[in-house]
Amino acid sequence: MSEENLGVHSESGRLRQVIVSRPGLAHRRLTPDNCDDLLFDDVFWVKQAQKDHDAFANAMRGEGVEVLDSGTLLAETLDISEARQWVLDHRISAGHVGVGMRRELRAWMDSLPGAELSKYLIGGLTVADLPFEASGMFGSYLGRHGFILPPLPNFLFTRDNSSWLYGGVTLNPMYWPARRPETLLTAAIYRFHPKFSGKFDVIWGDPLTDHGLATAEGGDLMPVGDGLVLVGMGERTSPQGVGLLAEALFAKSIAKRVIACQLPRSRSAMHLDTVFTFCGGDVVTSFKEVADEVVCYDLNPGKDDKPLDMRRDPRPMFDVVAEAMGIKRFRIVPTGGGDPFEKAREQWNDGNNVLALRPGLVMGYDRNDDTNAALRAEGIEIIELPGAELGRGRGGSHCMSCPTIRDAV
Amino acid sequence: MSEENLGVHSESGRLRQVIVSRPGLAHRRLTPDNCDDLLFDDVFWVKQAQKDHDAFANAMRGEGVEVLDSGTLLAETLDISEARQWVLDHRISAGHVGVGMRRELRAWMDSLPGAELSKYLIGGLTVADLPFEASGMFGSYLGRHGFILPPLPNFLFTRDNSSWLYGGVTLNPMYWPARRPETLLTAAIYRFHPKFSGKFDVIWGDPLTDHGLATAEGGDLMPVGDGLVLVGMGERTSPQGVGLLAEALFAKSIAKRVIACQLPRSRSAMHLDTVFTFCGGDVVTSFKEVADEVVCYDLNPGKDDKPLDMRRDPRPMFDVVAEAMGIKRFRIVPTGGGDPFEKAREQWNDGNNVLALRPGLVMGYDRNDDTNAALRAEGIEIIELPGAELGRGRGGSHCMSCPTIRDAV
Amino acid sequence: MSEENLGVHSESGRLRQVIVSRPGLAHRRLTPDNCDDLLFDDVFWVKQAQKDHDAFANAMRGEGVEVLDSGTLLAETLDISEARQWVLDHRISAGHVGVGMRRELRAWMDSLPGAELSKYLIGGLTVADLPFEASGMFGSYLGRHGFILPPLPNFLFTRDNSSWLYGGVTLNPMYWPARRPETLLTAAIYRFHPKFSGKFDVIWGDPLTDHGLATAEGGDLMPVGDGLVLVGMGERTSPQGVGLLAEALFAKSIAKRVIACQLPRSRSAMHLDTVFTFCGGDVVTSFKEVADEVVCYDLNPGKDDKPLDMRRDPRPMFDVVAEAMGIKRFRIVPTGGGDPFEKAREQWNDGNNVLALRPGLVMGYDRNDDTNAALRAEGIEIIELPGAELGRGRGGSHCMSCPTIRDAV
Amino acid sequence: MSEENLGVHSESGRLRQVIVSRPGLAHRRLTPDNCDDLLFDDVFWVKQAQKDHDAFANAMRGEGVEVLDSGTLLAETLDISEARQWVLDHRISAGHVGVGMRRELRAWMDSLPGAELSKYLIGGLTVADLPFEASGMFGSYLGRHGFILPPLPNFLFTRDNSSWLYGGVTLNPMYWPARRPETLLTAAIYRFHPKFSGKFDVIWGDPLTDHGLATAEGGDLMPVGDGLVLVGMGERTSPQGVGLLAEALFAKSIAKRVIACQLPRSRSAMHLDTVFTFCGGDVVTSFKEVADEVVCYDLNPGKDDKPLDMRRDPRPMFDVVAEAMGIKRFRIVPTGGGDPFEKAREQWNDGNNVLALRPGLVMGYDRNDDTNAALRAEGIEIIELPGAELGRGRGGSHCMSCPTIRDAV
Repeated sequence: MSEENLGVHSESGRLRQVIVSRPGLAHRRLTPDNCDDLLFDDVFWVKQAQKDHDAFANAMRGEGVEVLDSGTLLAETLDISEARQWVLDHRISAGHVGVGMRRELRAWMDSLPGAELSKYLIGGLTVADLPFEASGMFGSYLGRHGFILPPLPNFLFTRDNSSWLYGGVTLNPMYWPARRPETLLTAAIYRFHPKFSGKFDVIWGDPLTDHGLATAEGGDLMPVGDGLVLVGMGERTSPQGVGLLAEALFAKSIAKRVIACQLPRSRSAMHLDTVFTFCGGDVVTSFKEVADEVVCYDLNPGKDDKPLDMRRDPRPMFDVVAEAMGIKRFRIVPTGGGDPFEKAREQWNDGNNVLALRPGLVMGYDRNDDTNAALRAEGIEIIELPGAELGRGRGGSHCMSCPTIRDAV
Repeated sequence: MSEENLGVHSESGRLRQVIVSRPGLAHRRLTPDNCDDLLFDDVFWVKQAQKDHDAFANAMRGEGVEVLDSGTLLAETLDISEARQWVLDHRISAGHVGVGMRRELRAWMDSLPGAELSKYLIGGLTVADLPFEASGMFGSYLGRHGFILPPLPNFLFTRDNSSWLYGGVTLNPMYWPARRPETLLTAAIYRFHPKFSGKFDVIWGDPLTDHGLATAEGGDLMPVGDGLVLVGMGERTSPQGVGLLAEALFAKSIAKRVIACQLPRSRSAMHLDTVFTFCGGDVVTSFKEVADEVVCYDLNPGKDDKPLDMRRDPRPMFDVVAEAMGIKRFRIVPTGGGDPFEKAREQWNDGNNVLALRPGLVMGYDRNDDTNAALRAEGIEIIELPGAELGRGRGGSHCMSCPTIRDAV
Repeated sequence: MSEENLGVHSESGRLRQVIVSRPGLAHRRLTPDNCDDLLFDDVFWVKQAQKDHDAFANAMRGEGVEVLDSGTLLAETLDISEARQWVLDHRISAGHVGVGMRRELRAWMDSLPGAELSKYLIGGLTVADLPFEASGMFGSYLGRHGFILPPLPNFLFTRDNSSWLYGGVTLNPMYWPARRPETLLTAAIYRFHPKFSGKFDVIWGDPLTDHGLATAEGGDLMPVGDGLVLVGMGERTSPQGVGLLAEALFAKSIAKRVIACQLPRSRSAMHLDTVFTFCGGDVVTSFKEVADEVVCYDLNPGKDDKPLDMRRDPRPMFDVVAEAMGIKRFRIVPTGGGDPFEKAREQWNDGNNVLALRPGLVMGYDRNDDTNAALRAEGIEIIELPGAELGRGRGGSHCMSCPTIRDAV
Repeated sequence: MSEENLGVHSESGRLRQVIVSRPGLAHRRLTPDNCDDLLFDDVFWVKQAQKDHDAFANAMRGEGVEVLDSGTLLAETLDISEARQWVLDHRISAGHVGVGMRRELRAWMDSLPGAELSKYLIGGLTVADLPFEASGMFGSYLGRHGFILPPLPNFLFTRDNSSWLYGGVTLNPMYWPARRPETLLTAAIYRFHPKFSGKFDVIWGDPLTDHGLATAEGGDLMPVGDGLVLVGMGERTSPQGVGLLAEALFAKSIAKRVIACQLPRSRSAMHLDTVFTFCGGDVVTSFKEVADEVVCYDLNPGKDDKPLDMRRDPRPMFDVVAEAMGIKRFRIVPTGGGDPFEKAREQWNDGNNVLALRPGLVMGYDRNDDTNAALRAEGIEIIELPGAELGRGRGGSHCMSCPTIRDAV
């Protein structure tokens, strides 16, 4: 395994390197009152969530995967002077922290060890955290426990803010402004950390630029192999984002074809990977009811001066995708078995948001009894993870992982 | 221990008999889409919730408490012909199940064993459950998985629908119409089951009568000893309910004094037992921020032709209650320690909704690290229960228990 | 015209007598903060709403209709001692006003002129309105501007709480508990006021009885002629209510056939009369998009010991209804013309909630330009009423009227 | 009157020139279903709203004010080739309209007369509006009535997107991303239209730049005279925005002092001008309850290398502001008279959002009977405007006006 080969060449080939993000300060800041604003569904018992996340990371390590933690990577990155300056120049701007405390705040942050600084950039910074008196207007406005920098609890879902697609990576312009700082932090890691610096191409996306309504999130992006990229299209990854991403993928010869899968408006279909995930071979786990409503568009490089050739494909999504992948017909493992109530609960609990470690071996939450049994019945091995805490964030092992090196199948 | 002594004479004296309700079909009916309508905060992993509830019941048994399950009690009750008729006459009325299927439905229900019938009355009944074709308008309107009888997932919180106050019991007219069938089922148990039948007085409340805006829920009612009853007053237990209850308590000489504690409007203060609970002696665990906003009224038997003497007591609640109980000053264990974020999470996770088994021994959820540590620091022994599932219903061991026999202190 | 003939024999025959309810104190109590709780969509400029309502009443008078005001009728009713006692016994119960102030309150109310009493029963009663000090717990709990009796702003929609169907009347058990006192007040008028007392049969419904889930609202009930009643079925008028009503209609030989029209779940389809209304002859105005989703059930008197014969009719609603009424095919005037945005606004503004005064003459709001033009193009004469205020309550002239005498067509 | 003197030197001095925005296509696009997303409170009867807005404009003209319409100004601006290119380069970007239709769309837009183009940029552009087939992915995703460019119904409130403060103007970075295109359009007018081009300084704000969390809206900015600017601070105008604005005002010597008024979190306090407005002399109309909760900060140019001197002023807002303006004590006309219900309704209906045309003459909505009477009792002359439609947008004459030339007092 070597970092020379940064790149993700499938959804279910052998996983070699992955970035995850251990729960921490950001989740200790969550309360029933602030979690809506911070875009997190519920509060954690953080101590237990950390144990459960360690089990998740260790299970991957047990399969030979190199597991990197984004908090640690960021800490190491911030110990590089140029990197720290880049991050703080953009995060500690007057537009974010106001003019009153900016200089004093910046001076203090400049003095912190990388690990401390990383903790606050991800976990949020309150007035009470400051070593100096924030006596000005902004500190007074916020109150002692108000956030100068809001926590980023969704950084847990490392899948979303960047996506390795074959040999390149996207720095995703996320839908919610509150999540956009995540992309800045990840961009800093890729740009400056020796594990990544200089070893890849950025396909599209720039955390310093306003992309208008062109948004994309990694839960919608799947490099399934052979230069094909599946893209969920909806609220989170907008048509504008899909078009620009496809243009960039083709212009840089990263991909040869994009299939855009338009998701129905439903909270069960936030991202493509909440609708289906790949388990290896011809097996996918899917929330069939939602998958059946998906409308496909086939995007290919255009001719002459047209950047893209787009056409709607009227067939059911799994037919379109199977043909494109050269699979005769998917074996679709439905979420939650036959009981409609259990089905709805298991979809809600990320039953079909599994992460393949290699073909035929996936990770999923323990609580999805019927989905897991159905997967086993199709010959899929499943590592069951405790989901009582982590599942409250409404994301499974696919959401919580950003593969950086994965083999083709 | 004998059923002769049905009655609850304190909040922290030795608990001898209690009714709980094991999670089951009602919770297997919950989905993210229907749980709001069914007044339940989240969905369970039911298998695990049952295990955790068994641990809860077994821990009480280990302390010598007789633990009765409401589902079993109801099953046994329904095997008594007169009881079955009483329940079905009122639950399977045309107003509830329509005129089209009533007779066929009733005939089928009449033929079921008590355990089956109990399961459906608590767990809800869908069109798919019927052994006959519900081909009429109502069955067609509902669809195959629609509810003829809605599930009662909040029956888990046996505290609420009835309350043993000293030697009598109230059959509580609950705030939400959707919870009112719970009271009917409990009334049937008390009225017909040999463990209860004829052994107590009903203080107030009748599931067959419309009480207007006079509502009361058991989480608001605390018989703290010496004829004193504390009553939380707010959305759930209305002032009209408090007045009528006090009148009845005095008229039947069950209690000598009522202190009504007016709760602030806040989802952290649904019931009085979400604000504080007794741990034995002078120790209470409390969400201080909310407790400080409570306004007290002192209710005593009236003179002449006035049924009640009511006056506002301007002092802080804990001063009023301590004096009334002859305690010098409570030792108040705050929920969640010093961190304001942790405090909000532990209150949300029922940190102060503990159940005393005897003075100095309480049960609480494992996840409330800081509250539990603080209780121990005050010399309180705490049995930690797994709260990952059960806590999602927003109720702790106090909410999930209906003491029927408890000693005075 | 004589009250002997109380009875409504069509939806578009000549209207002879109608009950309306002039806006007043109930609407002066509305604020942006309380209107949701009081089930009213927006606040009024009451002075203007009264003028506009007067225009509505005067336009009917101009066509020879006897227009009765429910506030006046109630005032006259309350001046009858037996009637006053009946109303106050049920409205000023301990369950509604608590035990502390009941006697003093009742004594004061007993002393008020009927007009004053009527004003408070409809408009709501605050602590500040009392001539005595409400010093007890309930008064203190409510605060000076809290409601002892909540206002009934939806009493404006006299259509809903009772319905004259051919020679009888239903006293509707309404969906929202907050609207149920409306039925009590109307029942008092019918029972005691000389214009009504003893001159009709009650078909179904009793404001003193709990009807369980069997609810019905007049906006869903249409006696279209020849013993046929159309009933909207959905959230407001439940299948249980439809069945019981049909049973009663057949048992008392008031009607011969009921067509139940199951409404889709949509805020555009609250009542059947928000989906379509009759304009005379074969012309209806309808929100076609919603009407097309309606599912019909045909209810007829049952045979042998079956009270009802119910079968689903799979045809489109307008086909079912036209055939049943002996009309070849309706001319359907769509709400809001061709522009989809205007259509949505005009439906919202009660474009198809018109009231026919006689065949071919209807009343509607001035703001529905395209609907009104389309009606005229079909030969319907339309009296335009100012809708800027009244329309904020989300009801048109059909909702605001309770016909008591109307000819057959 | 000459455009040389562009500049606003008070809140109640003689108004000489103002920009308003006649309702139009943007409001014809509103429906009950889309108005939440488009940040508009209700739907209009557009025809009537236009008449009422004409009355508003004509009343100002009658007092000698030059009234400019933003739609007309934009149309004239877009007829300037360089201006059109600037607007379309930034509005018709791939990030906004996708890559599939951009070129064809731009070509069509380049060919439109300025008035047509202005109509669509403000009113929104649907797929159905296009003269060509939008057959690609984005057109198909949107559907025939989907918005390529969303309408800007809040452009009606010309107060918000730019603010003339003494001799300069701010191009406000608005809180809601959906309103930010308004600033771009206004910036184009100022930059290219001969009435404005080259005749003023931009103080702060740039529609082409991301300002982070530093936001400001004109309803919060009041140049009350003598170099003093009052700024409402809260959700809409953030502390970061206040600080940066103050820095710029001082650096460019536009203002000498800023008083930041921190608004309580309440929908009654969206902007400072929903809390109080100036009527001339010492008379203000104010929603006292909210005004009393405002916390003031006094901002002055800093010394040495500190850009700002900020200190909290603990006194009540009206004391702070009166002293700063050299007024002994304001005569405060409370919204809505003595009745608490009427008060809440009149505040909701913009009772205190009046626009002074000169000292002692203001414009307000007709529906606010008590507020208007109270103003007259203090000697203020009030021009009553029809508010039945315009008031549904939750803004009064102050919100709907952007003064560009106003005298000092």
